[in-house]
Amino acid sequence: MSRKIRYGMVGGGRGAFIGAVHRIAAAMDQQIELVCGAFSSSPRKSKASGRDLFLPAKRCYRTFEEMIEKEATLPADERMDFVAIVTPNHMHYPPAKMALENGFHVLSDKPATFNLKEAKSLGKIVKKTRLLYGLTHNYTGYPLVKEARDMIAAGKLGKIRKVVAEYPQGWLATHLEATGQKQADWRTDPKRSGAAGSIGDIGTHAENLAEYVTGLQIKELAADITTFVKGRKLDDDGNVLLRFKGGAKGVLHCSQISVGEENNINLRV
Amino acid sequence: MSRKIRYGMVGGGRGAFIGAVHRIAAAMDQQIELVCGAFSSSPRKSKASGRDLFLPAKRCYRTFEEMIEKEATLPADERMDFVAIVTPNHMHYPPAKMALENGFHVLSDKPATFNLKEAKSLGKIVKKTRLLYGLTHNYTGYPLVKEARDMIAAGKLGKIRKVVAEYPQGWLATHLEATGQKQADWRTDPKRSGAAGSIGDIGTHAENLAEYVTGLQIKELAADITTFVKGRKLDDDGNVLLRFKGGAKGVLHCSQISVGEENNINLRV
Amino acid sequence: MSRKIRYGMVGGGRGAFIGAVHRIAAAMDQQIELVCGAFSSSPRKSKASGRDLFLPAKRCYRTFEEMIEKEATLPADERMDFVAIVTPNHMHYPPAKMALENGFHVLSDKPATFNLKEAKSLGKIVKKTRLLYGLTHNYTGYPLVKEARDMIAAGKLGKIRKVVAEYPQGWLATHLEATGQKQADWRTDPKRSGAAGSIGDIGTHAENLAEYVTGLQIKELAADITTFVKGRKLDDDGNVLLRFKGGAKGVLHCSQISVGEENNINLRV
Amino acid sequence: MSRKIRYGMVGGGRGAFIGAVHRIAAAMDQQIELVCGAFSSSPRKSKASGRDLFLPAKRCYRTFEEMIEKEATLPADERMDFVAIVTPNHMHYPPAKMALENGFHVLSDKPATFNLKEAKSLGKIVKKTRLLYGLTHNYTGYPLVKEARDMIAAGKLGKIRKVVAEYPQGWLATHLEATGQKQADWRTDPKRSGAAGSIGDIGTHAENLAEYVTGLQIKELAADITTFVKGRKLDDDGNVLLRFKGGAKGVLHCSQISVGEENNINLRV
Repeated sequence: MSRKIRYGMVGGGRGAFIGAVHRIAAAMDQQIELVCGAFSSSPRKSKASGRDLFLPAKRCYRTFEEMIEKEATLPADERMDFVAIVTPNHMHYPPAKMALENGFHVLSDKPATFNLKEAKSLGKIVKKTRLLYGLTHNYTGYPLVKEARDMIAAGKLGKIRKVVAEYPQGWLATHLEATGQKQADWRTDPKRSGAAGSIGDIGTHAENLAEYVTGLQIKELAADITTFVKGRKLDDDGNVLLRFKGGAKGVLHCSQISVGEENNINLRV
Repeated sequence: MSRKIRYGMVGGGRGAFIGAVHRIAAAMDQQIELVCGAFSSSPRKSKASGRDLFLPAKRCYRTFEEMIEKEATLPADERMDFVAIVTPNHMHYPPAKMALENGFHVLSDKPATFNLKEAKSLGKIVKKTRLLYGLTHNYTGYPLVKEARDMIAAGKLGKIRKVVAEYPQGWLATHLEATGQKQADWRTDPKRSGAAGSIGDIGTHAENLAEYVTGLQIKELAADITTFVKGRKLDDDGNVLLRFKGGAKGVLHCSQISVGEENNINLRV
Repeated sequence: MSRKIRYGMVGGGRGAFIGAVHRIAAAMDQQIELVCGAFSSSPRKSKASGRDLFLPAKRCYRTFEEMIEKEATLPADERMDFVAIVTPNHMHYPPAKMALENGFHVLSDKPATFNLKEAKSLGKIVKKTRLLYGLTHNYTGYPLVKEARDMIAAGKLGKIRKVVAEYPQGWLATHLEATGQKQADWRTDPKRSGAAGSIGDIGTHAENLAEYVTGLQIKELAADITTFVKGRKLDDDGNVLLRFKGGAKGVLHCSQISVGEENNINLRV
Repeated sequence: MSRKIRYGMVGGGRGAFIGAVHRIAAAMDQQIELVCGAFSSSPRKSKASGRDLFLPAKRCYRTFEEMIEKEATLPADERMDFVAIVTPNHMHYPPAKMALENGFHVLSDKPATFNLKEAKSLGKIVKKTRLLYGLTHNYTGYPLVKEARDMIAAGKLGKIRKVVAEYPQGWLATHLEATGQKQADWRTDPKRSGAAGSIGDIGTHAENLAEYVTGLQIKELAADITTFVKGRKLDDDGNVLLRFKGGAKGVLHCSQISVGEENNINLRV
């Protein structure tokens, strides 16, 4: 490849959190460049957000539908190569589906979709279009994590017997969503976040790390999920016993109500 | 009290581990002095162990029965005040019972007895004799632990919602008992250790710390207990989901097969 | 400003170390873009390095002289705004001088020049051209460092009495330059590095941090500079007693022969 | 030896700091027992302090002179074997001299004496009496420190080139002695502490550790000693450049005015 790869972003406008993180990560390697976007469900905010990023006005689209349609008509040496999706959970599937069906690769923030039905549908589309579909679990990107995975794969720690995965956060220890804070608002709303609260938002990261680093797959689990904060609709704490294929055992716990926030994974042979 | 308190020790002779720790702990405050002992199930080793400690020969007894009998006949300003029991688990109850019945207070290493039947019997004896009976859980002795308990009791951390208690050890990651190592030998033997392996030996410390520090009581639990090392008769790993009275949830896990040994208790509000 | 700022780089080609770090730092904010460069003293390597970065061939120049000349002829909405200099020390002054004299701002890696004479000359040019000249000391860019500076400036730590600044490195503990390693080679060569070895390379960072964070200025010092590795021409270790204006005292020590590399600054009131 | 070693203590009564530490350290090994003492310059406080320690009244002496005289007349299987001296610095020499001259070994807290003249005199007495004289530098007692010394002696770290020894304390950051605090009072008083403040009190520990662990001897030094707190007569901060025999270089700094107290020794090859 003798040029940078070009991408368009869906979500990540003014006031968003994870979109800017994705843009920084993409910029660091200097192999990828942002060329267009539909940064917000508000067309006006989308346009303004694009200006903040020094994009030409004509490539700051009002909606993701418009972006995908217009980009598909541009010459091959100009149009985006892939779409990066960084919207709240309920808006992952629609742009992914449309992008794939119009010939664009997709890199989506996790979870892939809002529910199981959408996930199955998406799987079929990816297969049919033969395009690339990537799901980002950011922690697996750290060199340290990759090194750990390689050490275990090479057998340097022997057979893995016990896995302890933790992801405690404390930012939702109070009823933050009642104050209108944007991140708390959608992450605790079943209509936008999905069926799971802390388990879906961060427990998945702990699970992903545990499986990614050890190369093991969870076979059985017993979970005790709790909503501690009154008035909240989704869980804000979870404790899980794990059994892996091959006999390893483990514990996974995550929390949004633990004062002090960290991400630790501990593996013991 | 204008004199040091005098004690006799059962167990803790040459080759033992925890007895010497108890003697150091007792010595540090300089309020208690060791005056006699039956340090081993081998009369000869008991005598020799007493000499190591500079005790007069006549107060190094061959058996705990002899010690309790003889000490009971000494004048009040000379005989021991209490018996410290630091033997393997199956030998906790017999000397405790006999000491109490002969008028001596008892300070026993945990567990109090080998099984539930003995425990109930011991409870009756303590009540009847009105003597002091203490059970040592060493971790509760640390100033830091007491400070944590006081802070929670004073409400400084608010209402406790989540408790994570961990006690990973790695010393039994291999079949150490097959080498004849004394500590591994009795701790993995159901006849001397009791029905529980890692859960009884160290899980109890994690449980004790969790309840001691938070002031909460465990109401329900779900445990996944495993024996990883082939040929071992007792569990060497345990993962437990906890529910406390009052609504707090938690996780407790302990292990004797985790390379790297630590004791951590984490409490989150 | 409704567009990204454009820069050209001098140095930082294949095999270089600090140039790539500067490009990553510049990319993270996504406010600045690299548009051209003279990446190496070898015209061929310069061209190849530019291709690695997806620059158009015509803006990968053979020499910094060519870059400055050609860029000056480009239309204002296309040519670079400033020159970033990331060459070995003896090549800081020549491109800085030429860039300024041709109307370009300059951002140079430290030290500003190879010796005092060049530094005075450069000072005059900057004054005369009224262009911006920046010298990068990377550690001052960390948010934590800025926070520390602000806390002290706000008087939160009271009057500063003692400053301990340390910068131990271990990479030159052996005669690495004899192996031809590029970084070791020029950093230990008085013709390219200047009069100072470890003191100039890293002691300056410790000094910069100490003065930057405390807001104090060094008034007097007593230094004990050593070359430990046989055959090396510049110092690889330095210990310095510091006296600051206003009465604070301190210690600064740096080393390239200390196994284990870290950068610590400790301030005590 | 088939019995515990017996000692008498000079100093360390109610309100003292280091005496109790010495008693705990002595008790931990259970090889040494305290049998008598002259715990205070106040005869009344000395008696009361002895009672606190459960010593028989007749062996709680009013003065160290009385203790040494009386103990010398007791039968050999009863009298103390050695004298432990834990008084302020100006009272180290007198009891040490008298004890040695009356046939008792001596274990003294550092410094050995108040000034050079006393030190020379003491040296002669020790030589003449052929009794044991020990000077306690507590940090050398830690297993970790001994391990470090052994590693270096065995050449595992190669030739030592650089030594950094630090002992920052913060307890005298304010004019604490003006409040009558007993420890601050004598440690900042040239009549009782001697010619050196922080350098004598804690700098000596850093120096002792540096020489003890490396096995090197300081050959030359340049020191910058400061008294930061107004009205204080002795130094409360010191920064020192070190040159060791054999070519190693180093830095030692100690302080009583650094908020946060620690003891760190760092060695780099």
